[in-house]
Amino acid sequence: MSSERPPEAAPHADAPRATRAAIIAVGSEMLSSLRQDTNSLWLTARLEEVGISVVRKSIVADDPEAIGDEVSFAARCADLVVMTGGLGPTADDVTVAAVARRLDMPLSRNEDYVARMRERFARRGIRMPAVNEKQADFIVGARVLENPRGTAPGSWIARGGKEYVILPGVPSEMREIMEARVLPVLRERAGRIRASRRVLRVSGMGESAVEELVAPVYAKWKDDPVTILASPGEVQLHLRIVGEPEEAARRLDAMEADFRQALGQRVLSRDEDLASSVGRHLRESGLTVAVAESCTGGMIAKLLTDAPGSSDYFLGGLVAYSNAAKVEFLAVAEETLRSHGAVSEETARAMARGARERFGADLAVAVTGIAGPDGGTPEKPVGTVFFALARREGAEVARRREFNGDREVVRLAASLYALDLVRRAVADA
Amino acid sequence: MSSERPPEAAPHADAPRATRAAIIAVGSEMLSSLRQDTNSLWLTARLEEVGISVVRKSIVADDPEAIGDEVSFAARCADLVVMTGGLGPTADDVTVAAVARRLDMPLSRNEDYVARMRERFARRGIRMPAVNEKQADFIVGARVLENPRGTAPGSWIARGGKEYVILPGVPSEMREIMEARVLPVLRERAGRIRASRRVLRVSGMGESAVEELVAPVYAKWKDDPVTILASPGEVQLHLRIVGEPEEAARRLDAMEADFRQALGQRVLSRDEDLASSVGRHLRESGLTVAVAESCTGGMIAKLLTDAPGSSDYFLGGLVAYSNAAKVEFLAVAEETLRSHGAVSEETARAMARGARERFGADLAVAVTGIAGPDGGTPEKPVGTVFFALARREGAEVARRREFNGDREVVRLAASLYALDLVRRAVADA
Repeated sequence: MSSERPPEAAPHADAPRATRAAIIAVGSEMLSSLRQDTNSLWLTARLEEVGISVVRKSIVADDPEAIGDEVSFAARCADLVVMTGGLGPTADDVTVAAVARRLDMPLSRNEDYVARMRERFARRGIRMPAVNEKQADFIVGARVLENPRGTAPGSWIARGGKEYVILPGVPSEMREIMEARVLPVLRERAGRIRASRRVLRVSGMGESAVEELVAPVYAKWKDDPVTILASPGEVQLHLRIVGEPEEAARRLDAMEADFRQALGQRVLSRDEDLASSVGRHLRESGLTVAVAESCTGGMIAKLLTDAPGSSDYFLGGLVAYSNAAKVEFLAVAEETLRSHGAVSEETARAMARGARERFGADLAVAVTGIAGPDGGTPEKPVGTVFFALARREGAEVARRREFNGDREVVRLAASLYALDLVRRAVADA
Repeated sequence: MSSERPPEAAPHADAPRATRAAIIAVGSEMLSSLRQDTNSLWLTARLEEVGISVVRKSIVADDPEAIGDEVSFAARCADLVVMTGGLGPTADDVTVAAVARRLDMPLSRNEDYVARMRERFARRGIRMPAVNEKQADFIVGARVLENPRGTAPGSWIARGGKEYVILPGVPSEMREIMEARVLPVLRERAGRIRASRRVLRVSGMGESAVEELVAPVYAKWKDDPVTILASPGEVQLHLRIVGEPEEAARRLDAMEADFRQALGQRVLSRDEDLASSVGRHLRESGLTVAVAESCTGGMIAKLLTDAPGSSDYFLGGLVAYSNAAKVEFLAVAEETLRSHGAVSEETARAMARGARERFGADLAVAVTGIAGPDGGTPEKPVGTVFFALARREGAEVARRREFNGDREVVRLAASLYALDLVRRAVADA
């Protein structure tokens, strides 16, 4: 049986470590405005982990000439070319043939693989369509990368001092082959070299405020660049070091300590998002929480319940969009709404108190504000949000914030701010 | 004053219409695993609108040689090369110089532009740093594309029968220049040719079920390819025709009619998402709605309140995560919870009734289910969700569904299914 297989190259484990990779996504659909290539971002992260930098990425149509040109061009600037897509059974799927032609390597049908594909179809009670046979055409000398999830196998070719890894475009299949067959080899070649990362999440302040606070630390660690990424309500600091893991961990510990000193308790636990951090603190302290939302419209409850097991500490939430609901469910006094307005500190406090009592929770957080685009006034412009936190023992917290941005940004920033109030209340308790 | 400016090329409005474009995003940060190029998707959509197809996309580092090679390569397969990024004032920003060198065209400093940049800084009370001067270096013969939002101007160059549009990488600046200075010219050249699109949204069924129903229609319109895109809870059909608008509209009308006939009332109003469609139906009919959520944890309320003005028809929602909350707020009988369980049709019905009455709404929808990953049983596996819809006039609807996927997918699919129940109830009313 093995004699029918084309010769496969060695596992390449003792080849020199590649340091520069190019990624080519093949598929005309990714050149329309409807689909984005998402594989390359995942591949970049995996390659970085084994110490390989991506020097260029491209997306090319299902066209043999265009694919061939792209492969030649990519091989000029990288020593490893990773390709995804175009391995299906249809006439559009031409990646393997295009690469074979460009590298001037013959194709050969692997009859053993054809038999296994037939079996695969038979197990599902289907006769294999004839078109699928071409998926068993491999470049002679290629290492076949089995695909446990589908009929499109990958392949790994060495030619002229360069290497080419060809993977299916379906993300789950691409990832599984990469993790099971490609990364172990790359990792072995890299020896003890790898990228170590750490993410610090900072809540309750904007990007420029974070930048100002960390500028001296940033300068101190300028040889290990830190990336600052901002999203509404959260700023992330990405720390990354390529090298031996013990040394990297030591450096990362020292960097993290410096950043934490600059930022204080604004830093959440690392590698954990805000809702998860709140959940962990609640679970550890044995406390329960309830929420009362107006302008955030359910988003805080949604974020809290994204985590599995959140029923351990989240009792429930009320989305009181109308004044009547605030009165009926949260016992907010009509007089409070009349004299201070639905968007006021007093109403936020009454909502928090009402929610805590009615749900029987240890803590409750309430939000009322103007998400826009309409409803603003000179005293309370769009983006104005009032927060209140009520506790069983009675100590209340109230805050007023004005967020910039559109409705979506205001709602998200307000939701994260409310979660941060809960986090800090529990962390301090 | 104008004599100091380098000569600018004509507006290119009478140049032949480009039909093939390549997009190059310049920026080393987009080759890391932390940032994605998002400009190219937007650019692709705008170019399609003026009848230009994107034939390849690439991302390249801030390196003059790499940029030069990329430009040469792109110009071989396209007649219009659109570049973004690398126009800032720092040493990393080398796009213009790299293009000039590769196209063998001289650079010249535009002193008039330098003066205007200085004024711009002065208005903000800042002295312009010397490094910014290089942003006034233009390729001789380039058409300068003013940037009203920043100091990095774009440029438009014609050379060897190809055209090169260079834009800043900051998305808001890139978009504004493209819309104000580039697209009008491309539109004029295209004459009456443009791409007309239509999106049909299908709710309440999966991708393969949609594909089966529309297969005959798909075959009938095979010359005008339709793209099917699936996401949890929704399938989109994208129709696109390039040509004169009146003729395109006629063809789109006919296509839409065929698809609607095949799919029936599963098709939402076109170009409108499900929550917006629900909102429009409620507003038109003058009805109000409330929600009672368990496993979806606030997501239905959040989706309904994403739309501005939703307070006109959305009265509020209750996230009753605990049994106690179901009893306390929605008057679900303890006996119902005991004998049928919290995840049951009976509980869903009681929640819907309770929410409708307590919020005083015309309609209420309730959801209770097992989002996972834990909590499944043989009779009610993870993904099982019960829905109920209560109306003022008393006619109730109840449904049981099993959704496949992880916690996030189950929650989203259940939320959209619930919204679709409301939509159909109001549309039928």
